[in-house]
Amino acid sequence: MYGGTAASTIERFGARIGDKVEVVLSAEGSQGGHHRREIVLKGTLMGPYGPAAEPSLTIKLQNGYNFSMDPEGISSMKVLERVGTDPQARQRAAEDPSLPLVALIGTGGTIASYVDHRTGAVCPVRSADDLLYLLPELGSICRLRVTMPMSKLSEDMTSSDWTVMACEVVSAFGAGARGVVIAHGTDTLAYSAAALSFVLRDLPGPVVLTGSQRSSDRPSSDSFQNLLHSVMLAAGSDLGEVCVLMHASVSDGTSAVHRGSRVRKMHTSRRDAFRSVGSEPIGTVTDGGVDLTAPYKRADTNTEVRLHGKFSDDAILIHAQMTLDGPLLEAISRKRRALVLAGTGLGHVSSSLVPAIEGLISKGIHVIITSSCINGRVNLRVYSTGRDMLRAGVIEAIDMTPETALVKTMWCLGTLGPDALSLDRFRELFTSDISGEIGDRSILSAFPGAFYPLDEEDQDP
Amino acid sequence: MYGGTAASTIERFGARIGDKVEVVLSAEGSQGGHHRREIVLKGTLMGPYGPAAEPSLTIKLQNGYNFSMDPEGISSMKVLERVGTDPQARQRAAEDPSLPLVALIGTGGTIASYVDHRTGAVCPVRSADDLLYLLPELGSICRLRVTMPMSKLSEDMTSSDWTVMACEVVSAFGAGARGVVIAHGTDTLAYSAAALSFVLRDLPGPVVLTGSQRSSDRPSSDSFQNLLHSVMLAAGSDLGEVCVLMHASVSDGTSAVHRGSRVRKMHTSRRDAFRSVGSEPIGTVTDGGVDLTAPYKRADTNTEVRLHGKFSDDAILIHAQMTLDGPLLEAISRKRRALVLAGTGLGHVSSSLVPAIEGLISKGIHVIITSSCINGRVNLRVYSTGRDMLRAGVIEAIDMTPETALVKTMWCLGTLGPDALSLDRFRELFTSDISGEIGDRSILSAFPGAFYPLDEEDQDP
Repeated sequence: MYGGTAASTIERFGARIGDKVEVVLSAEGSQGGHHRREIVLKGTLMGPYGPAAEPSLTIKLQNGYNFSMDPEGISSMKVLERVGTDPQARQRAAEDPSLPLVALIGTGGTIASYVDHRTGAVCPVRSADDLLYLLPELGSICRLRVTMPMSKLSEDMTSSDWTVMACEVVSAFGAGARGVVIAHGTDTLAYSAAALSFVLRDLPGPVVLTGSQRSSDRPSSDSFQNLLHSVMLAAGSDLGEVCVLMHASVSDGTSAVHRGSRVRKMHTSRRDAFRSVGSEPIGTVTDGGVDLTAPYKRADTNTEVRLHGKFSDDAILIHAQMTLDGPLLEAISRKRRALVLAGTGLGHVSSSLVPAIEGLISKGIHVIITSSCINGRVNLRVYSTGRDMLRAGVIEAIDMTPETALVKTMWCLGTLGPDALSLDRFRELFTSDISGEIGDRSILSAFPGAFYPLDEEDQDP
Repeated sequence: MYGGTAASTIERFGARIGDKVEVVLSAEGSQGGHHRREIVLKGTLMGPYGPAAEPSLTIKLQNGYNFSMDPEGISSMKVLERVGTDPQARQRAAEDPSLPLVALIGTGGTIASYVDHRTGAVCPVRSADDLLYLLPELGSICRLRVTMPMSKLSEDMTSSDWTVMACEVVSAFGAGARGVVIAHGTDTLAYSAAALSFVLRDLPGPVVLTGSQRSSDRPSSDSFQNLLHSVMLAAGSDLGEVCVLMHASVSDGTSAVHRGSRVRKMHTSRRDAFRSVGSEPIGTVTDGGVDLTAPYKRADTNTEVRLHGKFSDDAILIHAQMTLDGPLLEAISRKRRALVLAGTGLGHVSSSLVPAIEGLISKGIHVIITSSCINGRVNLRVYSTGRDMLRAGVIEAIDMTPETALVKTMWCLGTLGPDALSLDRFRELFTSDISGEIGDRSILSAFPGAFYPLDEEDQDP
């Protein structure tokens, strides 16, 4: 909430946060006040940034830039379109039992971050209110239950954070939520989505993880659309899965809904960085509504939500490469109970590594094979080194991404507990499809190829 | 070459390997010879597979399948279209000084493999002739100089193999080659291409690495097109770079030419698995000719080709992940002089890893930061952990792929020798653009996105 002159200025002109407004600023001319100029700005009246209210008022201009001004310089402000609601109205909406209850779980990251105007650094928001004020429209779609169990940049997330998030989801559904939105940093968002998809099954509503590639103070921010569409999906669809919602293209307008265990951050900075791998997205969300086009698991409101299993950190993902030799592989794996090895191509490693892999397996370390290619299925039956590896007891990760294979390994180890020592028990659980992470033979459209048109079905070997 | 009855059968009907033929086979009917049936097959007369000539004759049917038959059963063979040349004619063409000389360097892999009909296993071809017989058309495009310095599945390639290949290229140009084609397994083809792009500069002609995702005995093989188009590119373009040529789509017809340091195998099995990363392909090749559309370095026939620098194996690539802790990172890196760390997103790692990274750098181990996203640029100046890493002395790999960053690290270490101990010297060489591996700000089209149309320029931060 604004305070001081900012608050009284807004009140004087009858505007509310979220309204489209036209602001007239008085500015001194260059000749020392001889020529007073007026500057007219049109845009959306934004809430204050930062944990402490600043004395300035901010509007988001039509070109997307945020413009902050001293309230003293405002000579008039006209409400062009009434969008915002006053805090009391929002409070009343929040209690309207005819609206579905959506739980928003804040965890930190860019989607919940702002630029500290004093230092120029990007800081995580520290209260749930900060999130709500960014997007007042949410109040008209649903009642919101906001919790913030942590405030972390996602590169700092650990497997215990996954468990905390999962418990928050269980608690949200227990409190009557129709759906859940988790605001999460994008760096490890796909890991968390895969993790939640393993421990949360038979869901009574959607669990939507969303993030932002550009913070909300930037003209090209994707925060607003991603949050709004995530809440729409959580409030109004019968999806019973853990999914990721992010921009579907570099343009605003459409968001893609990806299966939680089949999505990967494929670009460092683009707003459409998240891509489904090995399957098409489940569907899309626009301001007009939710459109789920691929098969998905329906929400089951008759089940009680609970956590299925837990996670162990006793695993590591290593990529095969020419400088990886047996002694180094052993030094790495000796400290873990399972090694996820991203091979080249169909899952190959140098034949010089096979004795080390045999040694690890004979010591009871599970070796799971995935591919650095990311797309496609591993297949170790084509070449002799692969067959040697299969004989030694490696487990093929089928068409899971390396990251999903790692998370599933952590989940299998944690869930099986002492039983994970049995290679057979581990293999049985690891190769069972839990949340759509294992696909039938890859479909063509699941591998994007923008440079050249795809015009013919291709066959896997 | 066929021998025995196979050779005499071909000779009797005036056919040559490579010709389109119609073969009539006599077959016994099911009633013990009472009803003799004739089977008519149309296709291309293939050369023999395997190191030793087999007694059977093989034709590639119009549906793509190879059909091998006992020559004794052939009642007639008609040449429908004269494509093949007899060994003498090929020999004469090979000496025709009006044709450009192309050096074909065989190294092994699927493009140079065949199925051993006795065991069902895929084996590498063991002689240069086996390659030539697969594609007689090559003889009409150029004179061929074929060497096979190794026969390896590419997952077994080491950095000394890169040096062997580079020496072969130098030697081929020294012998007057207009261009060079390297037939290579696909698994580590992109690594070899990046490596050659660093040690081979100021080239007098194209160096084209090519491979095959489907062996030549399979109906959907990409061997023939990839070899043919690679030779066309080597024989007829003014490209002065190391590049990779592979299928541009799952259909036959068009091959893509990728810059050697900007390409990655992105699918385990598809024929269009290779994709340019961070730049568009240099161009395409069809049966109709070569079309280079993006800027490229022209061949310089006035320079003497030589090796620039060499490789050290004293590096390792590790991907940041929640189960990677300081002690493990130290255990891995202690055995190497440089660590390439693929962070999440813009290049982040958990803040808990920063002390370990500082420790490594203080011990003189270079730490290079790339991104697991593969696409996009790293940027450690956005968040505080990144700035801490920069202060500690990490080196940003800009927009190199993780694999190119590893190969370049190996090349910088080897090339600088004892001077690589200096962080400044290493950083200076590593962050210089050697072969187009460092781009200007990413262009939109360099990130494929098939699911949704891209209709607006996006901006990097």
